[in-house]
Amino acid sequence: MAERAKVAVIGASGYTGAEVIRLLLGHPRAEIVALVAGRRAGQAIGAVFPQLAGYGLPDLIALEAIDWSGVEVAFCCLPHGTTQEVVLGLPEHIRVIDLSADFRLRDVATYAEWYGHAHRAPELQRQAVYGLVELARGEIAGARLVAVPGCYPTTCQLPLMPLIEAGAIVADDIVIDAKSGATGAGRALKEAMLFAEVAEGVHAYGIGRHRHAPEIEQGLSTAAGRPVTVSFTPHLMPINRGILASIYVRLSAGKAADDLRRILAERYSREPFVRVLDQGRAPATRHVRGSNRCEIAVFADRVAGRAIVLAALDNLVKGASGQAVQAMNVMLGFAETAGLAAAPIFP
Amino acid sequence: MAERAKVAVIGASGYTGAEVIRLLLGHPRAEIVALVAGRRAGQAIGAVFPQLAGYGLPDLIALEAIDWSGVEVAFCCLPHGTTQEVVLGLPEHIRVIDLSADFRLRDVATYAEWYGHAHRAPELQRQAVYGLVELARGEIAGARLVAVPGCYPTTCQLPLMPLIEAGAIVADDIVIDAKSGATGAGRALKEAMLFAEVAEGVHAYGIGRHRHAPEIEQGLSTAAGRPVTVSFTPHLMPINRGILASIYVRLSAGKAADDLRRILAERYSREPFVRVLDQGRAPATRHVRGSNRCEIAVFADRVAGRAIVLAALDNLVKGASGQAVQAMNVMLGFAETAGLAAAPIFP
Amino acid sequence: MAERAKVAVIGASGYTGAEVIRLLLGHPRAEIVALVAGRRAGQAIGAVFPQLAGYGLPDLIALEAIDWSGVEVAFCCLPHGTTQEVVLGLPEHIRVIDLSADFRLRDVATYAEWYGHAHRAPELQRQAVYGLVELARGEIAGARLVAVPGCYPTTCQLPLMPLIEAGAIVADDIVIDAKSGATGAGRALKEAMLFAEVAEGVHAYGIGRHRHAPEIEQGLSTAAGRPVTVSFTPHLMPINRGILASIYVRLSAGKAADDLRRILAERYSREPFVRVLDQGRAPATRHVRGSNRCEIAVFADRVAGRAIVLAALDNLVKGASGQAVQAMNVMLGFAETAGLAAAPIFP
Amino acid sequence: MAERAKVAVIGASGYTGAEVIRLLLGHPRAEIVALVAGRRAGQAIGAVFPQLAGYGLPDLIALEAIDWSGVEVAFCCLPHGTTQEVVLGLPEHIRVIDLSADFRLRDVATYAEWYGHAHRAPELQRQAVYGLVELARGEIAGARLVAVPGCYPTTCQLPLMPLIEAGAIVADDIVIDAKSGATGAGRALKEAMLFAEVAEGVHAYGIGRHRHAPEIEQGLSTAAGRPVTVSFTPHLMPINRGILASIYVRLSAGKAADDLRRILAERYSREPFVRVLDQGRAPATRHVRGSNRCEIAVFADRVAGRAIVLAALDNLVKGASGQAVQAMNVMLGFAETAGLAAAPIFP
Repeated sequence: MAERAKVAVIGASGYTGAEVIRLLLGHPRAEIVALVAGRRAGQAIGAVFPQLAGYGLPDLIALEAIDWSGVEVAFCCLPHGTTQEVVLGLPEHIRVIDLSADFRLRDVATYAEWYGHAHRAPELQRQAVYGLVELARGEIAGARLVAVPGCYPTTCQLPLMPLIEAGAIVADDIVIDAKSGATGAGRALKEAMLFAEVAEGVHAYGIGRHRHAPEIEQGLSTAAGRPVTVSFTPHLMPINRGILASIYVRLSAGKAADDLRRILAERYSREPFVRVLDQGRAPATRHVRGSNRCEIAVFADRVAGRAIVLAALDNLVKGASGQAVQAMNVMLGFAETAGLAAAPIFP
Repeated sequence: MAERAKVAVIGASGYTGAEVIRLLLGHPRAEIVALVAGRRAGQAIGAVFPQLAGYGLPDLIALEAIDWSGVEVAFCCLPHGTTQEVVLGLPEHIRVIDLSADFRLRDVATYAEWYGHAHRAPELQRQAVYGLVELARGEIAGARLVAVPGCYPTTCQLPLMPLIEAGAIVADDIVIDAKSGATGAGRALKEAMLFAEVAEGVHAYGIGRHRHAPEIEQGLSTAAGRPVTVSFTPHLMPINRGILASIYVRLSAGKAADDLRRILAERYSREPFVRVLDQGRAPATRHVRGSNRCEIAVFADRVAGRAIVLAALDNLVKGASGQAVQAMNVMLGFAETAGLAAAPIFP
Repeated sequence: MAERAKVAVIGASGYTGAEVIRLLLGHPRAEIVALVAGRRAGQAIGAVFPQLAGYGLPDLIALEAIDWSGVEVAFCCLPHGTTQEVVLGLPEHIRVIDLSADFRLRDVATYAEWYGHAHRAPELQRQAVYGLVELARGEIAGARLVAVPGCYPTTCQLPLMPLIEAGAIVADDIVIDAKSGATGAGRALKEAMLFAEVAEGVHAYGIGRHRHAPEIEQGLSTAAGRPVTVSFTPHLMPINRGILASIYVRLSAGKAADDLRRILAERYSREPFVRVLDQGRAPATRHVRGSNRCEIAVFADRVAGRAIVLAALDNLVKGASGQAVQAMNVMLGFAETAGLAAAPIFP
Repeated sequence: MAERAKVAVIGASGYTGAEVIRLLLGHPRAEIVALVAGRRAGQAIGAVFPQLAGYGLPDLIALEAIDWSGVEVAFCCLPHGTTQEVVLGLPEHIRVIDLSADFRLRDVATYAEWYGHAHRAPELQRQAVYGLVELARGEIAGARLVAVPGCYPTTCQLPLMPLIEAGAIVADDIVIDAKSGATGAGRALKEAMLFAEVAEGVHAYGIGRHRHAPEIEQGLSTAAGRPVTVSFTPHLMPINRGILASIYVRLSAGKAADDLRRILAERYSREPFVRVLDQGRAPATRHVRGSNRCEIAVFADRVAGRAIVLAALDNLVKGASGQAVQAMNVMLGFAETAGLAAAPIFP
């Protein structure tokens, strides 16, 4: 391994691509050697993202134009459904960190059901490691292809997996009300994402049928050792960055909210990016903005036998590009916090 | 009854006071004869709310300065806890519409528990009618004192009361995740309500202990005919106006989401301000902004036996001042939509 | 003239179209008989604008499907450049209020220079009346075709025209720094108008070459009696509605800021929609939101011989659809404030 | 000098204090040894700013509780007017970087005129160096007390000083229209800064009498070699961070906008934090957010002989705390970009 890993970012004209670039610019062990954005090939990155001008980054190129011999790692930041064939076409020596949903679902039948077409790279799917770093560090270290979890699934699984594994909550009675900022929808042109359609309002969407539900259930089912279905309802907030998951759970017999908090605090006590808050403190998306932090809190509900679990993170960092860089650090044996130590930016 | 009812607004320097004034300016049967704002007495309303300058409104005065002989109706828009003694001091002929929480809880012991002091006007409390107009129209018509429901309780009770009365949902398994705009906190100075503290973020607050929980439970318990406790968690959104309640319910045996929608659609089919949306449509706060509408939708959950009920309204209109004007219309025998017919303002 | 004028709205799926509908729903003398939105023909208006569902409005139809025999007035709310041919094709008895830029510039050569193609209806252009109501009421009354001024030109001409006519300021030294909300860009899909691109930031655009500059100059040149060129720089603000024009002027010899304020106050003393603020008060877009008001203030600059003129309005109301309805009222002999009396909505 | 400079932050409960802490957490040569916040003494920093919890920072203490023997540098982040006496009381060996306005105006008579009281430390004032780093690097290196410029003055002086020094613009005809985010007002409780009062609106304030005017004029007068007065009007934007100054200038005879751009590009060609944009590119606050960058552009005006100069920065970074850290780096001989290299965060 060279002093600095040579990195290509595929899909550099979208928000997660730009965020990978931002984080790698501050990374002591990574060097960006190629930026791919097919339709913008030939342009400077500053023409697409002015905030990234002036850092000596390479110009945007087409995928076919990359000389892969000088690349070790590729971040794939493409839309869902377009990534499978791209990854299939990459040389074997390239370690791939994919931020799309293409390799997240282990069961290709489930993939076909939710994404509307047969998986185009089922063999690759079998090699893919689900990259929720805190819960799969060992597997990630040796992986060639890491599927970075979705923003909602990260926010939900970090608190719920240890609670289910500990048998502290009833896995069949989980209600997730999740709130996300607008960057979660990416940079694609949709009327519903125009400023005037999003500002000064909130609403639920994808009710009862959001694609992150099967991804969350895949994790929770593993934790429970049997199939788990969850009630999951996402909402769009008029903010750029941030996800807050408000999770309403039923306690297992004999358990209290304090037990849940203790289980989580112990589980994450040595994790640099997961903070379990003290009793009475609630997380806010604004207090993790721009950082790779996930903050979790547990409250007793006033309904006996129930508790409220809250988790907040920045959907572009711990919910996407930050987690991707964290996975790279694990894959390449770097310090896990390399390039990710920046404190949140507030206000 | 004169052609136009003579109205005093007490607490004219707060947001609900201003909203009562805004609505009454467009009301064909009401005339504002006095505006009370103790600390701002002597000033023009335009000095406190520039948007209300130029409409020929009376200057702000102290409560003691009102000549009550020319007043028929008083809107009380004071902070919680300060209203009881004010209403006690009003002449008997004044019909009072109180927007604070002071007379909402029928049980003064519950009031004392949640508001931290003994109720100061228990006799008045016994006369007070809870002013959720669609559900108590008859009582309101004859009331001398109407307690306008809280913004969250309005949003939650409108969909839940008919469902519980019909036995269509399990009253003991209701989870409410509510989202509110910043005006719900009023105009009082609090660091947490500064622009820089609210913008670009979301968070839950009052978790497990918000004062609107007992108010909601008072209604639902009446509907159920037995004590009901709900899981209720409010969240602050970076918007000015709007409440969205996402309510997660368990269906009674044999019931489906479609049944819930049908029950609500029938219950509210002749109501001018409550709309039950067609299957597949979800409400958004931005689409009721500035209007007295409450929009309700029902979705099947992907968890068997569960449904998701969504309700949206403008917290300053149907959640406060609009509902107050609607109550006045009922009390005085006016058309119920008088002054309240304006369509939502979007974007 | 029937009790209610029969109105068609062409371009009902855009923001100015929706705003015309909103205002006409509250208009005592107008009835919407047709809503045109070519690509959405056959849909209910509520599918395009949920806030307009439930008011008994006609479904969207194609332009060709209108029975013009039952229509008296058409509001044209189409994008710039597409309107000329549409208006050409309308029956002669239809009185047309056009909200696009297509008929605003009297000189078709100037039009061609700024809009990139020869004017397609120069004869109609000659008949068109520029609809800045306060300054052209008489002409508008008899017009068949009214070109509703642009949002920026309205905000700038209302304060500047009387000052130039009075010779109180130097017409050759006017600097306009204008700030607009996002709805000014319409509902068209542009990456630059996505929520994440607009929120939490401000920037100038169209610097030195915005199409509203010649429109402003057309008015100011008329007032001055000679060609006037202005420095005009628009900025995009992360708000939905509102324009604020900060206008920096040089005083004519012997004039002071107080003189400017007096000239404007006298000029607009009987106007229902223009308010000249008292010394020391500054307008804010939030205090005119949703209303047809334009508020103007004048301040002495600390540079001797200079003054600062501020004007604020809601770009969708007085800057577009409200002014259009106001023009209709004048054309049809209605009370000028009919349908436009609602107070601003704040917060 | 030790490996890491030992730093105290006085005024750690305000926004500029928090931003100094955020930046120093990522600084390789600085160590925070004391955080002062009188009224919050005894609390953890996380109780005041949750985003700063978990970084091992010292608890908040009272000013009197500091052991100055172990401190080398103090950042003073106190409100205007309260700093003079605090700095007077600091031991002589402490190098002070003051973010308030207290030592910015060289002329104590001007200070008294604008701040309403006689300066309380005129001797210290004489030692103070005005810390606009790009323009006073040499003086700052040796200073004991640096007065960090105001956010508006930084944004205006960086582009204007070189242009005036070069004689390229007419110093007597400068109009500055400046737009700022809400954090510029600090964290003090004011009704006008509540979310509901700031969101969804823009307005001008301090018109003709803002305290940053004399500070700007102090710099421009120095550059011009004679007294200069400017037209300066600040506006409040509904954003957290960011200042955009739109500066309208008259060109000196024979000069064009391109000349201005060239002068600035040459002046700042080796500066790490000032970027002069290529022709046709305009700066946006969102593209410098969170970074220490100032971006400048020049456009030809359509009025002959005029040009438009635009400058954008993050008011909490280059406009306050970032510039303060930059000054520290110069004072202590560190790399000037130490702790300040992070790219902007967008969206």
